[in-house]
Amino acid sequence: MQDLRELYRQKRFKELVEQLNDWHEADLAEYFKELNKDERIILFRLLKKDLASGVFSQMEKEEQVDLINAITDHGIRDLLSGLAFDDKVDLLEEMPANVAKKVLQNVSKEERKIINQFLKFPENSAGSIMTIEYVDLKEYYTVSYALQHIRKTGVTKETIYTCYVIDSKRHLKGTISLKDIIMAEETAVVGDLMEEKSISVQTTDDQEEVAALFKKYDLLSVPVLDHENRLIGIITIDDIIDVIEEEGTEDFYRMAAMEATEDDYFSTGVFSLAKKRIIWLMVLMVSATLTGNIIGHFQTILHSAISLTVFIPMLMDTGGNAGAQSSTLIIRGMAIGKIKRRDTLKILSKELKVSLVVGITLGIVNFIRIILFEGESVSVALTVSITVFLTIVLAKLTGSVLPIIARSAGLDPALISAPLITTIIDALALILYFNLALIILGPTMFAG
Amino acid sequence: MQDLRELYRQKRFKELVEQLNDWHEADLAEYFKELNKDERIILFRLLKKDLASGVFSQMEKEEQVDLINAITDHGIRDLLSGLAFDDKVDLLEEMPANVAKKVLQNVSKEERKIINQFLKFPENSAGSIMTIEYVDLKEYYTVSYALQHIRKTGVTKETIYTCYVIDSKRHLKGTISLKDIIMAEETAVVGDLMEEKSISVQTTDDQEEVAALFKKYDLLSVPVLDHENRLIGIITIDDIIDVIEEEGTEDFYRMAAMEATEDDYFSTGVFSLAKKRIIWLMVLMVSATLTGNIIGHFQTILHSAISLTVFIPMLMDTGGNAGAQSSTLIIRGMAIGKIKRRDTLKILSKELKVSLVVGITLGIVNFIRIILFEGESVSVALTVSITVFLTIVLAKLTGSVLPIIARSAGLDPALISAPLITTIIDALALILYFNLALIILGPTMFAG
Repeated sequence: MQDLRELYRQKRFKELVEQLNDWHEADLAEYFKELNKDERIILFRLLKKDLASGVFSQMEKEEQVDLINAITDHGIRDLLSGLAFDDKVDLLEEMPANVAKKVLQNVSKEERKIINQFLKFPENSAGSIMTIEYVDLKEYYTVSYALQHIRKTGVTKETIYTCYVIDSKRHLKGTISLKDIIMAEETAVVGDLMEEKSISVQTTDDQEEVAALFKKYDLLSVPVLDHENRLIGIITIDDIIDVIEEEGTEDFYRMAAMEATEDDYFSTGVFSLAKKRIIWLMVLMVSATLTGNIIGHFQTILHSAISLTVFIPMLMDTGGNAGAQSSTLIIRGMAIGKIKRRDTLKILSKELKVSLVVGITLGIVNFIRIILFEGESVSVALTVSITVFLTIVLAKLTGSVLPIIARSAGLDPALISAPLITTIIDALALILYFNLALIILGPTMFAG
Repeated sequence: MQDLRELYRQKRFKELVEQLNDWHEADLAEYFKELNKDERIILFRLLKKDLASGVFSQMEKEEQVDLINAITDHGIRDLLSGLAFDDKVDLLEEMPANVAKKVLQNVSKEERKIINQFLKFPENSAGSIMTIEYVDLKEYYTVSYALQHIRKTGVTKETIYTCYVIDSKRHLKGTISLKDIIMAEETAVVGDLMEEKSISVQTTDDQEEVAALFKKYDLLSVPVLDHENRLIGIITIDDIIDVIEEEGTEDFYRMAAMEATEDDYFSTGVFSLAKKRIIWLMVLMVSATLTGNIIGHFQTILHSAISLTVFIPMLMDTGGNAGAQSSTLIIRGMAIGKIKRRDTLKILSKELKVSLVVGITLGIVNFIRIILFEGESVSVALTVSITVFLTIVLAKLTGSVLPIIARSAGLDPALISAPLITTIIDALALILYFNLALIILGPTMFAG
């Protein structure tokens, strides 16, 4: 990479291009990120046509806009001719209107019509990630004719490894893998070899559900049907991997009390980013005052035994962490399909047992620590330790139950996120703490 | 499914089997989970051989052990003959020793040798998820001979869509897709068509790095080489999807202060589960006493203005949440490769700006809320609101910097998990709070 920069500086473009044209498009796209806008545009123009399209499809939105604004209509046509159909749609989904216009002017009238149809599919639908570049066969084709057909039409297809068998009205009759075609006799007929009960999705299906099908059935691609069961596209596994990753990212964001977003961090403005975080922080800030009010309610106790205040942060944090452990486990388990609704009772009984072991252990450790290192009385140590124990048990049960309730109510369990659970558990922990203090340290102590 | 249960109860096994044999193995595996042990074993014996192996490979560990213990050696041989090689290795990795022995007795001596070699690969290495069932070609094969070879050997291969070109010493010379073979002239030679600079991994490579290659280069499979660059296996995308999901799960667990595990929740014992949670809870409990000590240090302030205590939970929670937002964003961004080391300064400047917007907004809201609803004085409201503002800014910067530092130090950023950041921020928030109280409410106030 150092060498390339050297070649560029010395304007030895010919040598530079020879080297670049030898790279994989994914590596080039990464290299291009390192360049400034002008360098990027100059070098991009020097790439082979196919490679240029490949690199382009892997660039960030901003870089794509810069490039399209910098090249001629002819250049745009070259670029588009090498792009897969679904990449074209992706591109147009994200572009500012004036750039999108410039792009659309350079596709054929027919293609423009289909692209515009595809642009209408909702953002998280199967329709918005499908491509029209698949191989279709007819039931009456022989294997040898099917192979001939694949050879003739396959070059520009996203995949040829699964072919789709349709009738004259484009209704899906079945699917057949290239493996089955290759393995069969030349005279065999597609209709006899195909899998009739093929798994398919609808344009309006949610992308996450489609991803779940890929995982369950180990698919490489899936046919997408309209509401009259006509084949209008396919979804391939490379796009599904992106969906799986976005899904995980969404859950991470929600559990950290942020609105989920598919936008790129670097190209999103400061105020949009701030907005996505303020709402939840505000909700949680206000709900944390509940905890504050509990402290306010028991102020007389704290006045009499101010040393009790010292343990409040530890109790709050331990409860919050213990609850977050359980809720994370359940939320993730449900997200990847490992935990089903019928497991509810099994989970609760297991979490109860785990919480007893964890609670007793940490309660004892805490008791010893307070006696030995904090120099407090046995009754204070006892108050704190019993609170630790009870808080952990309650926190784990709350953390397990809330996501399950959320799902039953049709809400996203990740939305009932860790911080919200924390607030609930904080309140529980403090109520326990002060009431135990009253019982163990004796009401008389606080009378004066 | 209701019908199936009815058929079972009436012991109309023949009809039941006819129906079951028509299902997809993934659906059957799900159906089998609903059954009790005896039902499962009875129905399993009634399945077609190939289907039985497919269903078996998708069962949970416990169910697999039950089955193997229940069937004869002959049954085990049938079962194994239908299993993919990597599924056999998976199975043996997870079985109790006596069951593994029973399985190994029923594979050929040769296969046992290879399986034992594969079992030696470390748990998260590329070696442990590869399979030996790939198609290998020689450089001098013509396309028509290559196709003949694929037809002859391909049936039992995990994939035939990418073929691997090796020399007589099994060194990898290149890869060639079935698409390129199909599209080429029959007389063309494999060596001329193949991709020489093919992407490959080593047996000892980390699975997560392998997954990153699949995502970057849109691969369907990748060749695995030993240290002498000899081809010894391939990894296919279906196994990589599992890796991507496990990776996400690990990060979720770590960020919720749990030890990551690949074990199944339901089949892990209560004490093992408890152990995975106690260690981090204990660390965090002890570190939360730091926060407690800060409160202890400023006890005289609290004694004079006990109402300040009421705002402690809100300050701690808001700081923790604001920090968790930033750290989650960075940790996830790094995990999926969207945030690189060179972005560090860009991130810090962006997070600083975002934190200023968020901090000012929440500071003002808080000020108004305290004046209007809590009936506190302007100076208390000011103390709390400035603390909110400063805490949010510090929390977001800490939350962004810590994961980056962790990664530079070669640690897993998810390990510097949200709760640990919370503890640091809690301490910062309280120190700010009490010092601001001293400044704004006036040292004289606390003198008496």
